[in-house]
Amino acid sequence: MEATTGILVDLFVLFAAAKVAGELFTRLRQPPIVGEVLVGVLIGPHALGLVGLPDSSLIDLFEGIGNEEAAKEAVTVVFDVIALLGVIILLFFVGLETRLSELLEVGGRAATVGVLGIIFPFILGFALIWATDPFASEDLEIEAAFVATAMVATSVGITARVLGDLGALGTREARIILGAAVVDDILALLMLSVVSGLGEDSFDVLELGLTALVAVAFVVFAALVGTRVIRQYSIHLERLKIRNAPFLVAMIVMLGLSALAGIIGLAAIIGAFLAGMMLAEAKERFNLEQQALPIYEFLVPFFFVIIGTKVDPGAFTDPTVLAIALAVTGLAVLGKLIGGGLASAGMPFRSAAIIGTGMVPRGEVGLVVASIGAGIGIITDDMFSVVVFMSIATTILAPSVLVWLYRGYRFTAEEVAERPEEPPLPDL
Amino acid sequence: MEATTGILVDLFVLFAAAKVAGELFTRLRQPPIVGEVLVGVLIGPHALGLVGLPDSSLIDLFEGIGNEEAAKEAVTVVFDVIALLGVIILLFFVGLETRLSELLEVGGRAATVGVLGIIFPFILGFALIWATDPFASEDLEIEAAFVATAMVATSVGITARVLGDLGALGTREARIILGAAVVDDILALLMLSVVSGLGEDSFDVLELGLTALVAVAFVVFAALVGTRVIRQYSIHLERLKIRNAPFLVAMIVMLGLSALAGIIGLAAIIGAFLAGMMLAEAKERFNLEQQALPIYEFLVPFFFVIIGTKVDPGAFTDPTVLAIALAVTGLAVLGKLIGGGLASAGMPFRSAAIIGTGMVPRGEVGLVVASIGAGIGIITDDMFSVVVFMSIATTILAPSVLVWLYRGYRFTAEEVAERPEEPPLPDL
Repeated sequence: MEATTGILVDLFVLFAAAKVAGELFTRLRQPPIVGEVLVGVLIGPHALGLVGLPDSSLIDLFEGIGNEEAAKEAVTVVFDVIALLGVIILLFFVGLETRLSELLEVGGRAATVGVLGIIFPFILGFALIWATDPFASEDLEIEAAFVATAMVATSVGITARVLGDLGALGTREARIILGAAVVDDILALLMLSVVSGLGEDSFDVLELGLTALVAVAFVVFAALVGTRVIRQYSIHLERLKIRNAPFLVAMIVMLGLSALAGIIGLAAIIGAFLAGMMLAEAKERFNLEQQALPIYEFLVPFFFVIIGTKVDPGAFTDPTVLAIALAVTGLAVLGKLIGGGLASAGMPFRSAAIIGTGMVPRGEVGLVVASIGAGIGIITDDMFSVVVFMSIATTILAPSVLVWLYRGYRFTAEEVAERPEEPPLPDL
Repeated sequence: MEATTGILVDLFVLFAAAKVAGELFTRLRQPPIVGEVLVGVLIGPHALGLVGLPDSSLIDLFEGIGNEEAAKEAVTVVFDVIALLGVIILLFFVGLETRLSELLEVGGRAATVGVLGIIFPFILGFALIWATDPFASEDLEIEAAFVATAMVATSVGITARVLGDLGALGTREARIILGAAVVDDILALLMLSVVSGLGEDSFDVLELGLTALVAVAFVVFAALVGTRVIRQYSIHLERLKIRNAPFLVAMIVMLGLSALAGIIGLAAIIGAFLAGMMLAEAKERFNLEQQALPIYEFLVPFFFVIIGTKVDPGAFTDPTVLAIALAVTGLAVLGKLIGGGLASAGMPFRSAAIIGTGMVPRGEVGLVVASIGAGIGIITDDMFSVVVFMSIATTILAPSVLVWLYRGYRFTAEEVAERPEEPPLPDL
């Protein structure tokens, strides 16, 4: 049997399980992604173990170089790459729905939401861990700062998906959330660099400042110059000889900006979002959405179900872990609601609630922070489980609340007119 | 930087390079896949090293478990999985174009082509290695048998792609080639089991017989029962609640049959082909082709460019290696031409030449045999390079010859009527 056969079987199980759970949750009138994440927990290596464990052929492949352990890590890398492609497509799609001009309209408000939505969760999270020291940390301040950082970032993918399902991506609230998430992601990743730096021996303020500068330059350049270039020059794509060239160039831009974002230390999904936003200028001419949709439907489910497989439900049988996990989750929700609410002063209560709730999911960003913290040994295993729980719980909670908040929402005539006939982000 | 960023950069480079090479070769009036494979050789770890080498973040991830070596193997596993998804989609698409009834019409002829196309390359290959013993093998008969086995299998993907580009998938020759390739693949994989068994200490005839039985049962069951089930019951897919359910179920069937084929010891692509053939019964109703097309355009190029990255051009500076590589390649071509030609007795010369040439590419099947042989230590490193050369060279040669053979081909009115307006398999 080939070494990749076991992984192929895993991919089949992941995809089929995601779709069956999605169908079930749709029938129960729940967001399908909640079903996808939960079924991932169920079939993952920490529970039923149907996926994520290397078979003997793959272990043989790593003979003499770590064998089983290395093979298991390799399966994780494969899953992470497939999930990464999924979330890149997801954010690309969200970008395609986002006109830069519309984002700039809400720019000031979005920046306020982003900044306040970072300050409150950070303070609450840091205070909780610092005051309780639940797992007798060796270096309490740094561990507390790390957990607080994980509570800061917004995973816009989940919210964007829910807003798309509701046909609400064109609303003012949605644009504020998307804009704030971009601000959030940039700031959170800078904070992660600072906190990681604190945990290491040396710490270079100059290097950090440079990272910040490059990150801001990248976003501004892609948003302003990239958008203009696409608007003016994309017509020339029709001169290429390979079939369907504009769509393929769009995929190249998507992968390229994602990779570039990763290289300069931002999340890859920021690059994917910017690529989508640039190409939104040319989407009608080249029918980009319709062509990207099947790729979206094929790859995005992997992202959500693979997030689920990373959870170890067994860790929460320890009452201390469970209590801290619930407290951290509660404060993570509260922090975003306070931050989002304050920043939305003057807007209707429902809008403020939507914006606050939309910022709640931590999703893959929380998981990335957790895995980096565990990797460099700043946070304990138990704290790792806590951060993962918070990331998943906020991700699971927010969609249902958003759906509920949008019930009875009065779309303006303009918003309804802008809404595509089919909701742009399909069921997963 | 995240551990997956380096791999994301690689995926971008692979995709962009494939597309640029495809555009260039299209302008030079050469088959684009030849450009894709060659650019893969150029950017691969054995030449420029732009892709396929782990970055420091990934090496850190494997700290203490093989480190660099394990990280490199993990990158290879990721590439192999992405390439596998690409070739699965490719064969699924070919299956969608294949009606079982049309395949059965040419069944007797296809079986003869398949069997004769196995016997001749095997005899020629075995005789060459056995008579020359170029690399002073420890166990000459088994090494010769292994090389001969690698010369047997047909990689139908490349031929199918070229035939699709020519709008010739509906021709009688194309159907014979596809049918023969199915026969070929099943027989070749059985031979691989035998030869691998010879190389190991124990050898179980009973187990082998069982494998053969299961393989035949799988193909017959999928082709006959599966096709009927889809024809009769696919209408019920419209009752599912998740959006675009028929397409998603098609993807589940594709992944599931591919995984199942892998589990019972066949090539995964056989399962993908059968899945496509089953779903051909429902493709118009659910618009499957149009929906699968973007996934095809996104994933299939990875398969061809990744094949290229596996080649080490440096091995061929040794004149013995080069001479044996050329001889093995020549006999691999000759064997298929003789086998296909004899089996096509009574057909026009051009048809016999098309069928023989269509069976020539060894592609990924040859590469799989080579890697299994190297894995269990039956063949030397130099012989590995030879088999890889033969696989790539036959893959590169055949498309141009096929294009040339089809120049001036007189399509029947029926064949033209069946041809879709857009060639079904797009440029890569």
